[in-house]
Amino acid sequence: MSRIFKVYISCQQLGTQMPKSQPYRVIQIGFGSLGRHIASSILKRENLELVSVVDANPELIDKTLGEVLQDCTDCIIKITDDLSSALNSLEADVAIVATSSSLEIVVPIIEECLGSGVNVISICEELSFPYQKKLDLAESINSIAMQNGKTVIGTGINPGYLMDLLPIVLTAPCQSVKTIYVTRHMNSSHRRASFQKKIGTGMTNDEFRQNIDEGKITGHVGLVESIQMIDAALNLGLDEVVELPPEAIIAEKEVTNSFTTIKEGDVLGLKSVGLGVKNGEDIITLDFQAYAEATPQYDEVIIDGIPRIHQRIEGGVQGDLGTIGMILNLIPIVVKESPGLKTMKDIPVPRNTMRFWKE
Amino acid sequence: MSRIFKVYISCQQLGTQMPKSQPYRVIQIGFGSLGRHIASSILKRENLELVSVVDANPELIDKTLGEVLQDCTDCIIKITDDLSSALNSLEADVAIVATSSSLEIVVPIIEECLGSGVNVISICEELSFPYQKKLDLAESINSIAMQNGKTVIGTGINPGYLMDLLPIVLTAPCQSVKTIYVTRHMNSSHRRASFQKKIGTGMTNDEFRQNIDEGKITGHVGLVESIQMIDAALNLGLDEVVELPPEAIIAEKEVTNSFTTIKEGDVLGLKSVGLGVKNGEDIITLDFQAYAEATPQYDEVIIDGIPRIHQRIEGGVQGDLGTIGMILNLIPIVVKESPGLKTMKDIPVPRNTMRFWKE
Repeated sequence: MSRIFKVYISCQQLGTQMPKSQPYRVIQIGFGSLGRHIASSILKRENLELVSVVDANPELIDKTLGEVLQDCTDCIIKITDDLSSALNSLEADVAIVATSSSLEIVVPIIEECLGSGVNVISICEELSFPYQKKLDLAESINSIAMQNGKTVIGTGINPGYLMDLLPIVLTAPCQSVKTIYVTRHMNSSHRRASFQKKIGTGMTNDEFRQNIDEGKITGHVGLVESIQMIDAALNLGLDEVVELPPEAIIAEKEVTNSFTTIKEGDVLGLKSVGLGVKNGEDIITLDFQAYAEATPQYDEVIIDGIPRIHQRIEGGVQGDLGTIGMILNLIPIVVKESPGLKTMKDIPVPRNTMRFWKE
Repeated sequence: MSRIFKVYISCQQLGTQMPKSQPYRVIQIGFGSLGRHIASSILKRENLELVSVVDANPELIDKTLGEVLQDCTDCIIKITDDLSSALNSLEADVAIVATSSSLEIVVPIIEECLGSGVNVISICEELSFPYQKKLDLAESINSIAMQNGKTVIGTGINPGYLMDLLPIVLTAPCQSVKTIYVTRHMNSSHRRASFQKKIGTGMTNDEFRQNIDEGKITGHVGLVESIQMIDAALNLGLDEVVELPPEAIIAEKEVTNSFTTIKEGDVLGLKSVGLGVKNGEDIITLDFQAYAEATPQYDEVIIDGIPRIHQRIEGGVQGDLGTIGMILNLIPIVVKESPGLKTMKDIPVPRNTMRFWKE
């Protein structure tokens, strides 16, 4: 059959034409495992320019990225610990803050960036929705952002997308919503060794419990923030948000992956559940499972509503790739956004922005 | 295991606390099949108040909704053909325009609403992304909306969500996007008789071709708009948007549903494909299939990118329910939005808003 039926020649929408012009200038703050992946992804992206990398680790200072990153051997940017000079001399548009999951630790860095007129995107989980657990810090960040006319947001694949923004968007066709059930079922064998360690892979059950008691294993960080973001986005008026203790997922037979060998009866990984409760009913359930050789992998959202929505991402979204994608894609959006502390539910629909250029 | 691990008492986010107060006041314009469903859904929704129903059909004028709607027999609102008096006397927040798929036909109604200071949401498919096929009309609507400080948007389940907004949002975790393939595979036996007729159900193959030639069967309306919205949202710079001729899907054996009996060799329904092309490559493919007894039903998005995303809504989203959901949920969002002609990609993430009240 002929392809020709109706053809429309494409021209750009009013006022959104974006010829290739200047790339966005980005400072990477924090050069740990994920920070390195972010930096090398920025280097590969045509519409972004990495202008500095800041890290306090004495072993890294004054090394070039080429010396540290295997896939960018010709990059001569030097790692520095001098944040304020990077902020004040390089006319950066955005700083990526990837130093810690603790909001207390990242706040001084964020506020210094904003004070120097640089927008901020951070993977700090607590920043993704800080209004309830850390209201004072949220107000302080928001006020400095407003004073400086700049924008700050916390994002990542989770929190920031799979268990909050995506379920929120999936309620858009629903005339009514009774409950939301989100599952992330992840094969942790594909993740970094530090991640596998963090979920107890290879421990005995006793070691796992002890690590939970000592706070060394925390389960997935961000369940509470994700539930609170959904609560605020849908105005649910939840009575409470409950985080259940992480549960070990036990090997029924010996399992070997590239990280370790897990004996029968030992710990493959964990299950971490968060609940949003109203009138005694679990309105929101976030069910996070990460363990060695979990199969099949998927990310699932079930909305009990009218109409009912049963959505699955087959194979799941690979966490590190997805987090880096979220970060890079938010850069042009954050530059254009109105000032203040934002969350993912406040901004225009996020999307791939590899073809966006500075206006 | 005890539920108690960490509990957070819920309080509302800064500045978004929304006690139940005034409902949004809504005028329904167009009282055909879908208009009736919209009206009865508004009547059932606590945060919305239906203040008038406008239709030009002489058989409806002066009847009460209770006389026409089976599920709202006690509703005494009278159907009127006097749009301007409804607009000027009832202090409506939003008018829902559900009169026609043709932008030319709905433009005078939309402009009268905006001129009277009433925001507009329409299911007119061409309004969902009018900037390329109907640029002059889009500019005229936008200018009147701006002059009056009001907002206008075209939406629905498709166009408006399944084949444009949702794939756009699914690119958010992608570091790069090569192609987007969207499939809607729908059992048309569950839809209205008028819909089944429109897709050729029960025709012979010859009748189907003749109806295509005469423009009586158009395939799914909105493929072009959806592709153009994705193009603009991702700044793809497509060379052309191609709509292939609708293809009949033929019964391999006799099929009977509540609408008709389809003989072997006759038409069950159709497949309608739209393509977004750049440098000779199909970057976007929208594949719409609606036919009697199609199974399983699903809505699927496959993004060939890094990471790859393979998303499915199992069972699909029922079209009429979803369109009504989109319309009702946009009411509070449109009231709050900045003035002008908007598309789904321009506004904050859409979501269920049954618990939103007028500020």
